Amino acid sequence: MSTPRLLLLSSSAVHGHGYLEYAATDINIFLNKNRVSTVLFIPYASADYDSYLKKVEAVFSKWGYQVEGIHKHNPVEAVANAEAIFIGGGNTFLLLKTLYDKNLIKPIRQRILNDGVPYIGSSAGTNVAAPTIHNTNDMPIVYPPSFKALNLIPFNINPHYLDPDNNSTHKGETREERILQYHGLPSEYDVFNVLGLREGCTLFIDGQVGILKGINNARLFIRGKPPKEIAVGTDLSHLLTDTLRTEKKLTP
Amino acid sequence: MSTPRLLLLSSSAVHGHGYLEYAATDINIFLNKNRVSTVLFIPYASADYDSYLKKVEAVFSKWGYQVEGIHKHNPVEAVANAEAIFIGGGNTFLLLKTLYDKNLIKPIRQRILNDGVPYIGSSAGTNVAAPTIHNTNDMPIVYPPSFKALNLIPFNINPHYLDPDNNSTHKGETREERILQYHGLPSEYDVFNVLGLREGCTLFIDGQVGILKGINNARLFIRGKPPKEIAVGTDLSHLLTDTLRTEKKLTP
Ligand SMILES: [Ca+2]
Ligand SMILES: [Ca+2]
Repeated sequence: MSTPRLLLLSSSAVHGHGYLEYAATDINIFLNKNRVSTVLFIPYASADYDSYLKKVEAVFSKWGYQVEGIHKHNPVEAVANAEAIFIGGGNTFLLLKTLYDKNLIKPIRQRILNDGVPYIGSSAGTNVAAPTIHNTNDMPIVYPPSFKALNLIPFNINPHYLDPDNNSTHKGETREERILQYHGLPSEYDVFNVLGLREGCTLFIDGQVGILKGINNARLFIRGKPPKEIAVGTDLSHLLTDTLRTEKKLTP
Repeated sequence: MSTPRLLLLSSSAVHGHGYLEYAATDINIFLNKNRVSTVLFIPYASADYDSYLKKVEAVFSKWGYQVEGIHKHNPVEAVANAEAIFIGGGNTFLLLKTLYDKNLIKPIRQRILNDGVPYIGSSAGTNVAAPTIHNTNDMPIVYPPSFKALNLIPFNINPHYLDPDNNSTHKGETREERILQYHGLPSEYDVFNVLGLREGCTLFIDGQVGILKGINNARLFIRGKPPKEIAVGTDLSHLLTDTLRTEKKLTP
């Protein structure tokens, strides 16, 4: 793997903060350090591209960045020319299907892994940075041609990670139960480790270095081990080694 | 459509009730009326078939029914010989993928629609009775060859339907937002109406007659109309007419 530069937010909205606000410092340092002046925004997780673009432009322009909406251009050319890429949240299935429909999976992956183009993802945009979207919380409202995603890191992510609510009478699975169901699949399925990013978590990756940033702890699920709390500031570089990736018999 | 006989439970577990207990009377009347003595149980939504079978056997044997686990037989033959079919909850993606892997979609559908074999579903087992699983809450831990399901009714179901928690600081989508996202898909997608079954809801269908049973209200989402509360006892037969089904361009 070459030099991916990633800033993966659990969500853009965090209680008590404006849109992307909790991560403003990290985003600004990330883009400045990489001398970015224009960000290519991909709004495919939503159905209303134009109003989504306006929302994103309002924040990035305040910070001094230009934003281009990919839907206003030839998408493959826009990716080829991008200085930086931001994929926002919405529905992960709709996002992934649209990336496939527009033949963008390989081009985006190559720009990030080969050319070192900085990538910011939030929620669904963070899900698709992982090898697969098997650990999204979203409703499967459309059928993508595969659950394989951009595969920029060797583990899956569960954004909006949520602790069990002990006062709840609801009998649907907790988030932890859902991830353990995934890790408990029959042995013919190979699965990935899962990093549960609570709202307010940001995963920062620069080449071989990974660090948990943000304002909230994460929860790490290594298959066969008890889940583990990860404090803000923790070095997660060991998760980036390929030995943790197992995809022998991954379904598409 | 011929004579489907369906009892679709939102969930087997309901706060304050034992396994399947809230629906005991409805299940017993349903099976007795149809002169069932043995129920074919399909545990594919779970990874541990044997312990799941034991749990189901414990309850049905108390009621005087035999239970056969499909995994102990040739599955296609077991379906061909079934007096009644029960598909339990777990993970909807794992369930649907396994039904496809074992070539059971058509045989089960034919037994129910052509031969009038009574069908009981719970949670994931209720999701797969619908045209598609686009409205499951489950995590997409495996990739099924399609989201199209048994298609026994002309609308989708969201089991474990949950009202927004006004005290929550969590920013993930509410259930209603997720269903409205589905209905707000771009016009090239054709979508189904969605019946949100709160835990404790049971949808009873006998041919052209549909009634909401159980101990909790449901919430109905007709595309383009405001969501509507459905009280226990409401006649839902009008939902069974084919005019509500739109599947022009459904993705697989
Ligand atoms: Ca989402
Ligand atoms: Ca489930």
